[in-house]
Amino acid sequence: YKRINQATTIAVAEGDGIGPEIMRATLNILKAAGANIKTEPIEVGQQVYLSGNSSGITEESWKTISKNKVILKAPITTPQGKGYKSLNVTLRKSLGLFSNVRPVSSLHPYVHTNFPEMDIVVIRENEEDLYAGIEHRQTEDVVQCLKLITRPGCEKIVRYAFEYARAYNRKKVTCMVKDNIMKLTDGLFHTVFKEIAAEYSDIESNAQIIDIGSAKIAASPENFDVIVTSNLYGDIISDIVAEIGGSVGMAGSANVGKNVAMFEAIHGSAPDIAGKKIANPSGLLNGAILMLAHIGQAEVADKIKNAWLTTLEDGIHTADVYQKGKSTKKVNTEEFTEAVIERLGQTP
Amino acid sequence: YKRINQATTIAVAEGDGIGPEIMRATLNILKAAGANIKTEPIEVGQQVYLSGNSSGITEESWKTISKNKVILKAPITTPQGKGYKSLNVTLRKSLGLFSNVRPVSSLHPYVHTNFPEMDIVVIRENEEDLYAGIEHRQTEDVVQCLKLITRPGCEKIVRYAFEYARAYNRKKVTCMVKDNIMKLTDGLFHTVFKEIAAEYSDIESNAQIIDIGSAKIAASPENFDVIVTSNLYGDIISDIVAEIGGSVGMAGSANVGKNVAMFEAIHGSAPDIAGKKIANPSGLLNGAILMLAHIGQAEVADKIKNAWLTTLEDGIHTADVYQKGKSTKKVNTEEFTEAVIERLGQTP
Ligand SMILES: CC(C)[C@H](C(=O)O)[C@@H](O)C(=O)O
Ligand SMILES: CC(C)[C@H](C(=O)O)[C@@H](O)C(=O)O
Repeated sequence: YKRINQATTIAVAEGDGIGPEIMRATLNILKAAGANIKTEPIEVGQQVYLSGNSSGITEESWKTISKNKVILKAPITTPQGKGYKSLNVTLRKSLGLFSNVRPVSSLHPYVHTNFPEMDIVVIRENEEDLYAGIEHRQTEDVVQCLKLITRPGCEKIVRYAFEYARAYNRKKVTCMVKDNIMKLTDGLFHTVFKEIAAEYSDIESNAQIIDIGSAKIAASPENFDVIVTSNLYGDIISDIVAEIGGSVGMAGSANVGKNVAMFEAIHGSAPDIAGKKIANPSGLLNGAILMLAHIGQAEVADKIKNAWLTTLEDGIHTADVYQKGKSTKKVNTEEFTEAVIERLGQTP
Repeated sequence: YKRINQATTIAVAEGDGIGPEIMRATLNILKAAGANIKTEPIEVGQQVYLSGNSSGITEESWKTISKNKVILKAPITTPQGKGYKSLNVTLRKSLGLFSNVRPVSSLHPYVHTNFPEMDIVVIRENEEDLYAGIEHRQTEDVVQCLKLITRPGCEKIVRYAFEYARAYNRKKVTCMVKDNIMKLTDGLFHTVFKEIAAEYSDIESNAQIIDIGSAKIAASPENFDVIVTSNLYGDIISDIVAEIGGSVGMAGSANVGKNVAMFEAIHGSAPDIAGKKIANPSGLLNGAILMLAHIGQAEVADKIKNAWLTTLEDGIHTADVYQKGKSTKKVNTEEFTEAVIERLGQTP
């Protein structure tokens, strides 16, 4: 949808660990850039879990989400222990966020990568697979987890990938499965891929086995374009791509459903550095940039993206990427945020 | 076991695609090096499948295997289609080959890698997980695959990894799981890992989540030593490691059980280049080197390994790695084989 001149209210989860710090940084940049948004906080994460709500999200928050339909979410800490389900998965599944879109392109030479040409979008199925969360203990010593794949699930994500490729002028969609072993489940994903690929003759398509496919991604990511795959493979591949492209700490992602969309960093809550004010807000900021494009504020999104790129090109780097490329100045979260804000309006 | 002065009879499967070519090359090198082995052929693979035996292996071959207990196997082509089960999986499961050992170390600068220091052994559980092959179609549109993890299975592989680390003077064992999502199945693997790690206080140990863990492997493999993980993760990780270390075409692997062991290349049968006589026999040769060490002929194994390394260092490279490093001469399978044989007795 396009609502450029209409303020969109965003449900904002400030998260745990470094969450609140990077959320503050991100919202400050959005505000300075003139993003036309309002925010409403939602209560999710550690506090909610520990107050006895094992879903990690309050009833009130569900209401805020269904009213606003757009969420910006910082990383959450799910407490250890069998009683606690991952909030990421709860949100993705409850809200039908079937598509997890994770773009990564090289920041060479400003942040080091062996692959200056890489520019990949991983489109990860987000509701099914082993993430369906169906596990049981059969005997004391035997446990099982069900990998669930459905035709409608495959169709939705594969079609999304081809539509995405068309919309963003991408040349090729690669499917990753292990259907030489999982003939029914991964076989279904592959079959649906071939069916739908045939409808998009303007876009090149191919399929790879996940083992050698992941190896090829790790060794020559510049040969890939859009990748569509199931939940767990997408989880692994997107982290690989983000890390070899510069840093897993810099990638943002969109979780998109029919009615609701949620935007986040792909990294975790990094409790070890929480409160130290050194965290890199780039992952969440890139999530927010995807969000702005989604709500029809693509111009603001581009403005922020350019300011962020200019900051990196000026060598202004947080500790996690400092001296991992052409760094000139090591900055903390606040200084990085200010540097981005100062560069709003500049193009790299 | 050690049987240095006693000829061991090996069950040899020449495989499909490039299989026969690289097997011939490998056996020629073993013979020239003075390996004290006899061979007995077994019938496995495409011909057997297509003759109507959907297991891909004849009764006669099972007998040869149970008599000899050591198998050298070239890559197999499993025909497409639901009726055909992967022969690799059939052999691994039927023979209880619970441990799949895949060592990869850098061949820098003779074969290009971004990671000159890498030296990793992936120890992959080989009987359980999604490879148990339990799949079913629940409705027309819903298919499922069961991921099976057992405590004895975890114990066997984790203990194997620590014993391996001790035997080969390795410093650290890293466990890879996704137990933030699969709390029961991957949780059990992780629990057993912690229990057994506590018995090996001489060896460092840690655990990583498979998504970020794979990303760290792809970005800085030199920080890893021994990796122990479940079947599917190990499949993916070992291909990544082999490919970024030089080429997936160069790595060999040992499939080890209580009574039987099977040695192979980790790559496939490459039907596209079959018969062209250009295939690189290095993967299978490295499998055979592991085999010789296993049957107590470590000296011959070292002699072959050194000749192979010297060949690569002399820049004598097959097409797949030619000009991917310090190549001086592009050779075919036979020339490569002769070059290795000529260098027997030399050390790199
Ligand atoms: C935190 C975890 C549940 C999550 C996932 O596995 O999906 C994360 O790794 C991600 O990729 O967003
Ligand atoms: C061919 C295939 C069944 C096999 C596997 O998945 O184990 C291969 O990829 C391997 O790694 O040995």
